[in-house]
Amino acid sequence: MSQHFRLETKDRIAHVSLDRPDRKNPLTFESYAALRDWFRGLPYDDTIDVVVFGSNGGNFCSGGDVHDIIGPLIGRDMKGLLTFTRMTGDLVKAMLACQKPIIAAVDGICVGAGAIVAMASDLRIGTPEAKTAFLFTRVGLAGCDMGACAILPRIIGQGRAAELLYTGRVMTADEAAAWGFFNRLVPAAELEAEALTLAGRIAKGPTFAHMMTKTQLNQEWSMSLEQAIESEAQAQAICMQTEDFSRAYHAFVAKGKPVFEGN
Amino acid sequence: MSQHFRLETKDRIAHVSLDRPDRKNPLTFESYAALRDWFRGLPYDDTIDVVVFGSNGGNFCSGGDVHDIIGPLIGRDMKGLLTFTRMTGDLVKAMLACQKPIIAAVDGICVGAGAIVAMASDLRIGTPEAKTAFLFTRVGLAGCDMGACAILPRIIGQGRAAELLYTGRVMTADEAAAWGFFNRLVPAAELEAEALTLAGRIAKGPTFAHMMTKTQLNQEWSMSLEQAIESEAQAQAICMQTEDFSRAYHAFVAKGKPVFEGN
Amino acid sequence: MSQHFRLETKDRIAHVSLDRPDRKNPLTFESYAALRDWFRGLPYDDTIDVVVFGSNGGNFCSGGDVHDIIGPLIGRDMKGLLTFTRMTGDLVKAMLACQKPIIAAVDGICVGAGAIVAMASDLRIGTPEAKTAFLFTRVGLAGCDMGACAILPRIIGQGRAAELLYTGRVMTADEAAAWGFFNRLVPAAELEAEALTLAGRIAKGPTFAHMMTKTQLNQEWSMSLEQAIESEAQAQAICMQTEDFSRAYHAFVAKGKPVFEGN
Repeated sequence: MSQHFRLETKDRIAHVSLDRPDRKNPLTFESYAALRDWFRGLPYDDTIDVVVFGSNGGNFCSGGDVHDIIGPLIGRDMKGLLTFTRMTGDLVKAMLACQKPIIAAVDGICVGAGAIVAMASDLRIGTPEAKTAFLFTRVGLAGCDMGACAILPRIIGQGRAAELLYTGRVMTADEAAAWGFFNRLVPAAELEAEALTLAGRIAKGPTFAHMMTKTQLNQEWSMSLEQAIESEAQAQAICMQTEDFSRAYHAFVAKGKPVFEGN
Repeated sequence: MSQHFRLETKDRIAHVSLDRPDRKNPLTFESYAALRDWFRGLPYDDTIDVVVFGSNGGNFCSGGDVHDIIGPLIGRDMKGLLTFTRMTGDLVKAMLACQKPIIAAVDGICVGAGAIVAMASDLRIGTPEAKTAFLFTRVGLAGCDMGACAILPRIIGQGRAAELLYTGRVMTADEAAAWGFFNRLVPAAELEAEALTLAGRIAKGPTFAHMMTKTQLNQEWSMSLEQAIESEAQAQAICMQTEDFSRAYHAFVAKGKPVFEGN
Repeated sequence: MSQHFRLETKDRIAHVSLDRPDRKNPLTFESYAALRDWFRGLPYDDTIDVVVFGSNGGNFCSGGDVHDIIGPLIGRDMKGLLTFTRMTGDLVKAMLACQKPIIAAVDGICVGAGAIVAMASDLRIGTPEAKTAFLFTRVGLAGCDMGACAILPRIIGQGRAAELLYTGRVMTADEAAAWGFFNRLVPAAELEAEALTLAGRIAKGPTFAHMMTKTQLNQEWSMSLEQAIESEAQAQAICMQTEDFSRAYHAFVAKGKPVFEGN
């Protein structure tokens, strides 16, 4: 589907992963842009309901490649640097705005921009071997990369996020599970199946409503409580005019299970 | 006190619970409205300092009733739907603005709007049998109900909240305690006594100051750090002009314990 | 260095602590002001990269002294009270704006304004004997002191913060570690060495980038997600023009370790 990342679509689930397993799946200028463009197209793709961002060859992603990305950035002028940092930020923005839940399935190395991709997903399943590191500080940069200073504290707490961002140290799989970064751990051999099962379960749900859940989780980020409650009253009233709401009611009355169709 | 919910007031503590234990205490249009109105009156009720929102017959609340609420909503026009979702949101707004700490005492089923009532309380004590589910997705709706996309992530973290809101699955009592949804678990037989003891302890404190704590926890939700710190300087200066502050000082100097009066 | 607190500077690390160990290190009007002024000067001090705010004589800080602070506040008019609460808030503002990571090393008593100083630090290491209490309610005041209603919930979660702020009870060392208030616990005999080792590790990192990480952790507090991502694109582009970024790249290419210089 793309020469810059793997993509398989089946049962309304898109299974994405980076595809240089021999190098632990680094990101390149091209794969950043290709992923950004693909996520940007998702709101208009009615054949996909859920995304699994998986691992490949035992690793998730080793981040921006030193030779392919960091090297060319050295010596760029400010215009050129801002072009790059905005492109990477645009990948996160596109993931947040893609209107479909994203499940990261994380095995092995998950560092730098790879850790960001996991963080910007909605749900995360890890393996005991998963090593997640926001290691920007190791390459002379700040922890404020692609939204990390805003998003990571809301997932694992402000103090834990600060430690990871200042030191660049690895968050172990056990820490990640205990702190709520990973929703759970499964053995590596079961990771893909587990993520696809969860994706299938979500895809069978009311996908229009899921879209609204994702929208509101992001939309209410910095609203006041009163604004958030009013915003949800509007969003949920919209969902109450879907057929899926009616399908659930009629199935319940008939003592059956609803079959949702996403409209 | 009300035909739509139970209410007992003793020692300045209001003990509220829903009152259809045979059906696990569903909410109805009438009980939503009655609770909303009762919480709206609380700021003006000087006889109550703390609220315990308890369980009844082994369950907390089964949410909006399928026959009494969901059925009548099917086919409503947008004006009618928004009237409903705003009424449910108004219950949460009224709980947040009631100026008294609310302790939810959660046994058994705590789902849908019931889970929201627990979430919108200030503190939560659970039992090992407590099953909490934000199951809106099961009835074809979105997780953004009555403020859940804003409030739940701040209690248990963004990733865990996302999983519960997308899947509608039960959060077990152990998970709820480990994640900070429940402040602690106690055996069901001790739940009511434990909640009332905690309520009594808080009611013996400086209740004017507690009112200000609740106000600021909500008020600072989306402020900048600088704004929040200035806002607290003002709020605490107000508290320093209460007699309770003076009472505490004089009791301390006399090596006694302060008796607070809430002014 | 100061008569109101201890200050030793070595290897670009400032080691600060209060200095009345016989009374568990209370704060006074003078030490509040002296600390505020010292933190306010830090952005302009190029000899210090990291701050360790340590304990002294087995305790961190017992908060505002009853005789030295609370007594004189009783009976002050609103102008006088606001002057005080703003001064205490200014200490937190100065810590947040000091541009250097702060590590609190907490042993024994850590209560009231002492708990706030720990909370306002970036990282916190505790001992099993650390007893942290936001006990404002015990002296007749509200939990909204020096930013606690905004900051504490983001570190340990909204529900746990509410319990501590309403009851004023001690958060044990085990709770603090499990909830993410302490990044970890170490035996009291190792506390100072552990904090200085961590400080040294951070000081050896790219300190200009650390400054930007701290700035953004605070700056993005109440931004929308889109605003935060754009803000980080700008902040990181600035960091990419530092020599430290180039040093890291060249060291990596040469298969060596970068030596950062903070510019």
